[in-house]
Amino acid sequence: MSDPNEKLRALLGDLRDGKLDVDEALSQLQMDVTAGDFATVDTSRPLRTGMPEVIYGSGKTAPQIAHILKTLHAAGQTALATRVSEEKAAAVLAVCPEVTWHPVPRLLEWRHGSWEDRGQGEVLVVCAGTSDLPVSEEAAVVAEAFGNRVRRLTDVGVAGLHRILRRQEALREARVIIVCAGMEGALASVVSGLTDRPVIAVPTSVGYGAAFGGIAALLGMLNSCAPGVSVVNIDNGFGAAYQASLINRLT
Amino acid sequence: MSDPNEKLRALLGDLRDGKLDVDEALSQLQMDVTAGDFATVDTSRPLRTGMPEVIYGSGKTAPQIAHILKTLHAAGQTALATRVSEEKAAAVLAVCPEVTWHPVPRLLEWRHGSWEDRGQGEVLVVCAGTSDLPVSEEAAVVAEAFGNRVRRLTDVGVAGLHRILRRQEALREARVIIVCAGMEGALASVVSGLTDRPVIAVPTSVGYGAAFGGIAALLGMLNSCAPGVSVVNIDNGFGAAYQASLINRLT
Amino acid sequence: MSDPNEKLRALLGDLRDGKLDVDEALSQLQMDVTAGDFATVDTSRPLRTGMPEVIYGSGKTAPQIAHILKTLHAAGQTALATRVSEEKAAAVLAVCPEVTWHPVPRLLEWRHGSWEDRGQGEVLVVCAGTSDLPVSEEAAVVAEAFGNRVRRLTDVGVAGLHRILRRQEALREARVIIVCAGMEGALASVVSGLTDRPVIAVPTSVGYGAAFGGIAALLGMLNSCAPGVSVVNIDNGFGAAYQASLINRLT
Amino acid sequence: MSDPNEKLRALLGDLRDGKLDVDEALSQLQMDVTAGDFATVDTSRPLRTGMPEVIYGSGKTAPQIAHILKTLHAAGQTALATRVSEEKAAAVLAVCPEVTWHPVPRLLEWRHGSWEDRGQGEVLVVCAGTSDLPVSEEAAVVAEAFGNRVRRLTDVGVAGLHRILRRQEALREARVIIVCAGMEGALASVVSGLTDRPVIAVPTSVGYGAAFGGIAALLGMLNSCAPGVSVVNIDNGFGAAYQASLINRLT
Amino acid sequence: MSDPNEKLRALLGDLRDGKLDVDEALSQLQMDVTAGDFATVDTSRPLRTGMPEVIYGSGKTAPQIAHILKTLHAAGQTALATRVSEEKAAAVLAVCPEVTWHPVPRLLEWRHGSWEDRGQGEVLVVCAGTSDLPVSEEAAVVAEAFGNRVRRLTDVGVAGLHRILRRQEALREARVIIVCAGMEGALASVVSGLTDRPVIAVPTSVGYGAAFGGIAALLGMLNSCAPGVSVVNIDNGFGAAYQASLINRLT
Amino acid sequence: MSDPNEKLRALLGDLRDGKLDVDEALSQLQMDVTAGDFATVDTSRPLRTGMPEVIYGSGKTAPQIAHILKTLHAAGQTALATRVSEEKAAAVLAVCPEVTWHPVPRLLEWRHGSWEDRGQGEVLVVCAGTSDLPVSEEAAVVAEAFGNRVRRLTDVGVAGLHRILRRQEALREARVIIVCAGMEGALASVVSGLTDRPVIAVPTSVGYGAAFGGIAALLGMLNSCAPGVSVVNIDNGFGAAYQASLINRLT
Amino acid sequence: MSDPNEKLRALLGDLRDGKLDVDEALSQLQMDVTAGDFATVDTSRPLRTGMPEVIYGSGKTAPQIAHILKTLHAAGQTALATRVSEEKAAAVLAVCPEVTWHPVPRLLEWRHGSWEDRGQGEVLVVCAGTSDLPVSEEAAVVAEAFGNRVRRLTDVGVAGLHRILRRQEALREARVIIVCAGMEGALASVVSGLTDRPVIAVPTSVGYGAAFGGIAALLGMLNSCAPGVSVVNIDNGFGAAYQASLINRLT
Amino acid sequence: MSDPNEKLRALLGDLRDGKLDVDEALSQLQMDVTAGDFATVDTSRPLRTGMPEVIYGSGKTAPQIAHILKTLHAAGQTALATRVSEEKAAAVLAVCPEVTWHPVPRLLEWRHGSWEDRGQGEVLVVCAGTSDLPVSEEAAVVAEAFGNRVRRLTDVGVAGLHRILRRQEALREARVIIVCAGMEGALASVVSGLTDRPVIAVPTSVGYGAAFGGIAALLGMLNSCAPGVSVVNIDNGFGAAYQASLINRLT
Repeated sequence: MSDPNEKLRALLGDLRDGKLDVDEALSQLQMDVTAGDFATVDTSRPLRTGMPEVIYGSGKTAPQIAHILKTLHAAGQTALATRVSEEKAAAVLAVCPEVTWHPVPRLLEWRHGSWEDRGQGEVLVVCAGTSDLPVSEEAAVVAEAFGNRVRRLTDVGVAGLHRILRRQEALREARVIIVCAGMEGALASVVSGLTDRPVIAVPTSVGYGAAFGGIAALLGMLNSCAPGVSVVNIDNGFGAAYQASLINRLT
Repeated sequence: MSDPNEKLRALLGDLRDGKLDVDEALSQLQMDVTAGDFATVDTSRPLRTGMPEVIYGSGKTAPQIAHILKTLHAAGQTALATRVSEEKAAAVLAVCPEVTWHPVPRLLEWRHGSWEDRGQGEVLVVCAGTSDLPVSEEAAVVAEAFGNRVRRLTDVGVAGLHRILRRQEALREARVIIVCAGMEGALASVVSGLTDRPVIAVPTSVGYGAAFGGIAALLGMLNSCAPGVSVVNIDNGFGAAYQASLINRLT
Repeated sequence: MSDPNEKLRALLGDLRDGKLDVDEALSQLQMDVTAGDFATVDTSRPLRTGMPEVIYGSGKTAPQIAHILKTLHAAGQTALATRVSEEKAAAVLAVCPEVTWHPVPRLLEWRHGSWEDRGQGEVLVVCAGTSDLPVSEEAAVVAEAFGNRVRRLTDVGVAGLHRILRRQEALREARVIIVCAGMEGALASVVSGLTDRPVIAVPTSVGYGAAFGGIAALLGMLNSCAPGVSVVNIDNGFGAAYQASLINRLT
Repeated sequence: MSDPNEKLRALLGDLRDGKLDVDEALSQLQMDVTAGDFATVDTSRPLRTGMPEVIYGSGKTAPQIAHILKTLHAAGQTALATRVSEEKAAAVLAVCPEVTWHPVPRLLEWRHGSWEDRGQGEVLVVCAGTSDLPVSEEAAVVAEAFGNRVRRLTDVGVAGLHRILRRQEALREARVIIVCAGMEGALASVVSGLTDRPVIAVPTSVGYGAAFGGIAALLGMLNSCAPGVSVVNIDNGFGAAYQASLINRLT
Repeated sequence: MSDPNEKLRALLGDLRDGKLDVDEALSQLQMDVTAGDFATVDTSRPLRTGMPEVIYGSGKTAPQIAHILKTLHAAGQTALATRVSEEKAAAVLAVCPEVTWHPVPRLLEWRHGSWEDRGQGEVLVVCAGTSDLPVSEEAAVVAEAFGNRVRRLTDVGVAGLHRILRRQEALREARVIIVCAGMEGALASVVSGLTDRPVIAVPTSVGYGAAFGGIAALLGMLNSCAPGVSVVNIDNGFGAAYQASLINRLT
Repeated sequence: MSDPNEKLRALLGDLRDGKLDVDEALSQLQMDVTAGDFATVDTSRPLRTGMPEVIYGSGKTAPQIAHILKTLHAAGQTALATRVSEEKAAAVLAVCPEVTWHPVPRLLEWRHGSWEDRGQGEVLVVCAGTSDLPVSEEAAVVAEAFGNRVRRLTDVGVAGLHRILRRQEALREARVIIVCAGMEGALASVVSGLTDRPVIAVPTSVGYGAAFGGIAALLGMLNSCAPGVSVVNIDNGFGAAYQASLINRLT
Repeated sequence: MSDPNEKLRALLGDLRDGKLDVDEALSQLQMDVTAGDFATVDTSRPLRTGMPEVIYGSGKTAPQIAHILKTLHAAGQTALATRVSEEKAAAVLAVCPEVTWHPVPRLLEWRHGSWEDRGQGEVLVVCAGTSDLPVSEEAAVVAEAFGNRVRRLTDVGVAGLHRILRRQEALREARVIIVCAGMEGALASVVSGLTDRPVIAVPTSVGYGAAFGGIAALLGMLNSCAPGVSVVNIDNGFGAAYQASLINRLT
Repeated sequence: MSDPNEKLRALLGDLRDGKLDVDEALSQLQMDVTAGDFATVDTSRPLRTGMPEVIYGSGKTAPQIAHILKTLHAAGQTALATRVSEEKAAAVLAVCPEVTWHPVPRLLEWRHGSWEDRGQGEVLVVCAGTSDLPVSEEAAVVAEAFGNRVRRLTDVGVAGLHRILRRQEALREARVIIVCAGMEGALASVVSGLTDRPVIAVPTSVGYGAAFGGIAALLGMLNSCAPGVSVVNIDNGFGAAYQASLINRLT
């Protein structure tokens, strides 16, 4: 990835050398694009971080989502929108028919160009139960969109411990592992005890009663007795995929 | 165990048959012994439940504890006091030298008569880490005092999963299993997935930060994805031993 | 119940004796059946634990539930699915007409073979109020499906204490007692004070305001001043029935 | 009790009639006494409410407490200070030797005049366990200082239900009942189910783990399935006594 | 009110004197009426407490509510059902047309006989804002149904302090005061500082964000710096009316 | 703004001088207008505080809202209603067609007279993301209705820090700044570190999982390491605008 | 106050004009002073914000505090340290004898130059009870150190409402009001309802039980039904004084 | 790192080939060493994960810590113990004088052999304030002990945003970044917005009041609007260093 700080340094140098005046320099730095009067789209984010901007769909209207997706696509970026309800998705697809709808993780994806492997290895997405699939698929689809090879282990929770014990080869072959689990979230501790790969744990809101919408799993993962686990927000498959992508790109 | 309801029925029959008048019947039912002006000692509890009364030492003074222990001992019962600080224990021992002090679980025990096996099998006490020992020893010592054969597995938490996997024989041979674990408490789920014995889980307050004094383990255990787990209060080794004793006595 | 560890030991012996090669041994251990790409059905669970696998219906689609029920039924097991909404149930029944729908506890049951009493005694299910029936019926129906004789006491909460005091004979005759109560959950403490049988307490989400969806009852039960109470998750009638079955099967 | 609003009305009339000018009227209304630069002592409170001012001792220094006690005593009032540590009490007694120290509830009392029964009946203070005595004694001693006849039932928690069942006569003879209980606080529900007297429930911080310093008892009491219970703050024996006094004075 | 304990004593006397045999005595004590298989209706509650049984409508079906109302009405009691949705109410009215529907507090009332003043004074129901009316009307209508004269002060919250200051006469004339307030619930403290009557505070779930469904008001009322306040559950107008009735009946 | 205390002093003077009798004086002070039997409209609030009364629409019916709006309008005030659903708004507009509906912040406004700048400077409303717009627009529209010049910065959250860094001129030119942000709410800390203007922070309920409906942002803002931040309730754009107006009017 | 952005603009201009090279410009911007290896003292903060840097004393050692105080003093600033225990204060005074120790708010102050009134009016600090004095004095002393005239109202909580009603003149004369209150924190609502000045509310940790260390007061203040209140962290007198200073300096 | 699964596969092969009998194979797998009767030291962990075992010192006695350190050292491993109080450390050093005591992070370290760089790049440890040093130093010292080059940025919190903006070069040069911050924890969001390296966030318990011992920072970090942040437990510098080491070793 090119270094945005170098760009800034060059810009300052140009200013010093008279190639730019102060207003031009300020203008060059104003890389955001205003979308309507409701968004400041950060199209320069790929320059700074090497990762595309992703739209958080919750709390935005379908026209707002479509408008921002188009702005990002026009800027030459693969664009994603997460947490898009089926109704909003239909409305967006009506005006942006090239967009792909992933129903399980409720994701919209507008791929720019063909898929390219930007990782150094494989991202393994482990899912404790069938009910966790919407979250683990958010992680898997986002990771693929960000240029990672992805492998999935589904429904391998600790109630039947042999299910994960028989998949230790997959744990060994991954470069980074995402574990999605609800209820008590013990799968993260067990996986981390079986591997030397970094584990990104995603507590899910699966469960009831004292699961408290994912708090039990969140606390369980934060307190994992097996080190090597870090945690993202409840149901935040996207965040786990983002972090895994950063790690998988390290050379 | 004799049936206290039969005793009550007999009492009512005696009343009907004129062997007792109403005041005598009432008096017979007033089996509590007042200890000082601060306690109503339930010396009839063994009749009702077959289990000795146990004193909750926290919030009581050393003289109060000693007074109640003596009352129970005088009534012919094995007497226990839990959650007794070292200072209070010394003060009690100074006036009741026959009492035994268990320093790890901070327990006082005044055994009445010789030990007797009242269980149908073995109670297994499993402890996740060395820091959980005060709780697991409370469970083990109380279970022994209540007439159970007890076996201990210590420091077998899931960070090194093979430690518990190698002890599956013990899990199989027990009649009832107590699991004491802090942090995320995942050991309860793992043990329950490996056995067909009832598991009583004791969350401990071991951990820091988001362990919140045992809440993380408590929630983890309540949400165990492996069924067959029920839970007692945080650090309540006594309660687990009590429940295990009831189960172990079932014929 | 046959001992699955013995099976594993036999398998290792066969490997040593050349009756199996390494791949065959691994294959024998891979007893899970993949259902679609969304589930890893643990059909070997009855071998390990003597209890059927039960499907957690929440968060699964009707086709997923039907698929897993069929897989379990094909494996010769009584199959249950809990927390199934009326809509999902209708969709499952449309494709699996042999399945029974229990509307109060929202349970699907596909019995395999005729009912068989596998317990050593009776499981008593005590319910504090009419509003707790969905939970207490989940406990009762699951316990019956697991091969227990079940007796019910309904609407006997502590606001009218005589209701439970008059049923002490039932408390005495049970082998294990399940108490379902919402609001402050005091019925568990009262029942436990009246009996020497293990009490499994199920806090329900009945109540409002500071009941906090069952937290008040959960905390009340965890802090019961009467020992002999252990607790499962809020509204978890299934979990209570599962543990009661384990206890009732002890010989 | 005289009506303070009548006094205010008379004052306004005097103003209208020229018997007072505006400044004098304002001055008459300025009935507070400044104690040092740290307190505005409301010596007119007895006029308004018929109850003495009580000092909340926590967070105040011994000299501050002594200063306010003297101010109140000089105004002819019985003065109390709650939540006074033993050290502070000794320092106050050194300068106010007429003050009485109640060590169990940690209360200072400076009685003005002789005791006088101002209630219409008896206040019954019920305490679940010996560890609750500091709270129940705060309630009992304050109620006595406020002019009530007080009766005590100690150590009658629901683990041995017969202890309270045998005392139903006391429940019937009281005019208002205060119930102090920690852990799950179920005693409030049980007492309220047995009586037609108003029950003021005081959750205590007795317990550990998921008792959360009295939260379990507080929630249990707020959610009592038996109506007729209202609740004050955790460990607030004083508040319960105050409310009971208001009720007991109603004619 | 007649004394139910006297009845029990008489019953025991009859047993002693041979007027009853044991089975007859037991039968006499079995005063509950089973309604369907889902309820144990406590028709003897008026004997014990002098107050009618009230049905908690939430979590019950309309046929269950109708069945229980009929059972209570047949037993000669005024019957109430709280927390009944408009849909359930319509279904009940269709089969019990004599029942009255109170839409603001969502209450069903089936009055038995004509209204009778059983209180010694007036119950004042104070409401902080218009949004609190469903709760304050539950309190007011229940108090009326229980035989109290009721007066209402509506929309007198502390944001405009003069609104309550101008109504001090009403505060003075009441025998017991119910204060219903959401948000921060400060009205309870202010009212209690202005009166010498017992204040029953009802936190309401009115508010948003950090009101947390009534927790802010609940905590505010429990921590009132003005004594003389006791608290019931969030939105529990019924519970406040019940206790106010007990207090108002004291002679 | 005229001083309401001066009015009260004048009133007292008139009473003293015989220009008013006591009843007339009381009547003058009874400035509230009762609206129906459900509201006590404080039409004298502008006299006391210089700010119009604003109706909290949640929990009120459309007819209640319309009735109160009309009462305020008839009293010559600009009237607002917040938290009005689209359905209620339509019902109000049907009977009050002069009212303006602001759909994004769900506000009704009935302006009295023409707009007038009553502030000393500009109120800047900063919004972290597009999903926060309903809250930030509530703040902006209310601030305008209260007579402030308002400027908006939209979608300038800290994930792209340059977005706010480039707008430091706006931060410098404002007199008071409102920052609306959900998720972790870090924008308030960052803005406050960049300016010497008072910052009123509004946590929004935008986010999911461990955002807990705005708690994460609320706690973040309360703990801002940059001083100069004070906080209002979650989603309380109105409250922030109100306080900003008070500050902006200071001369 | 001079505008730090103007300084930055001048600096950029000098760079463009060749008066500075890039390294010199960077150096000019590096205005922090490293104190030991444990602190990066922001001595340029007065330039940016017009307010001195204040040291948060908790978690720092006495030598660290002394070192930073000296660095700030050497830079010509009035220096403060908050939350300094008596022991640490003594150790600092031993090496910095010019420092002033304020024991009630536990503050160290090292004034630079003579006191100067930088505000446009008066800051009023209102304190509900004597136990709140450590917090309200932190607010008052910090506000004075920051160049404000400060007035104090002490012990005027709502339990005796007339105490604050009699001080309305002070509320009217202040430019900005700080209200410090624990327990239910109702004083903030009451004060705000009586004035048109911005109110900064400081919840204090005074109280017990369900006060939860200030949470009850915090929630009460955040949910104030009287608008015009914003809130800072529990016990954060410093933060309130800072915000009040910003407001009081507005011209 | 050698692959422990390969070792297990070889072991199985040896068993098949008759080079080992079943007991010998079992024995080879029993690599734990029992330390006293209180610990099961997992000396085979380095084989499985390539990382040394670290002792959690809290809740263990000094003799227990010393015993386990010696066991690990005897097994040829660098041994660490975290959360060791100064008193315990002195007792351990008395019997293990070769151990190094790090007072700021309260760590004991017993290095085996000379230091060796096992990472692919640099671990950057960023600390928001001086009070966070105990946590950030735990992270830094552990990371060094695990074979990483470590760089530190201290006291660069967002209150003075330029402090971190001036260090962007360090953010760019690191391979993985650890951010330790208390209070609102906003530094993690800001750092992550400025870099494309994975950020491990450590919330610290620095702060007071509504910081709730680190909860505010924890929630802030979990809800970071800037992706690329994952989180470990409050004050868990060790856990962050462990995961950073796993990432830094990836080739």
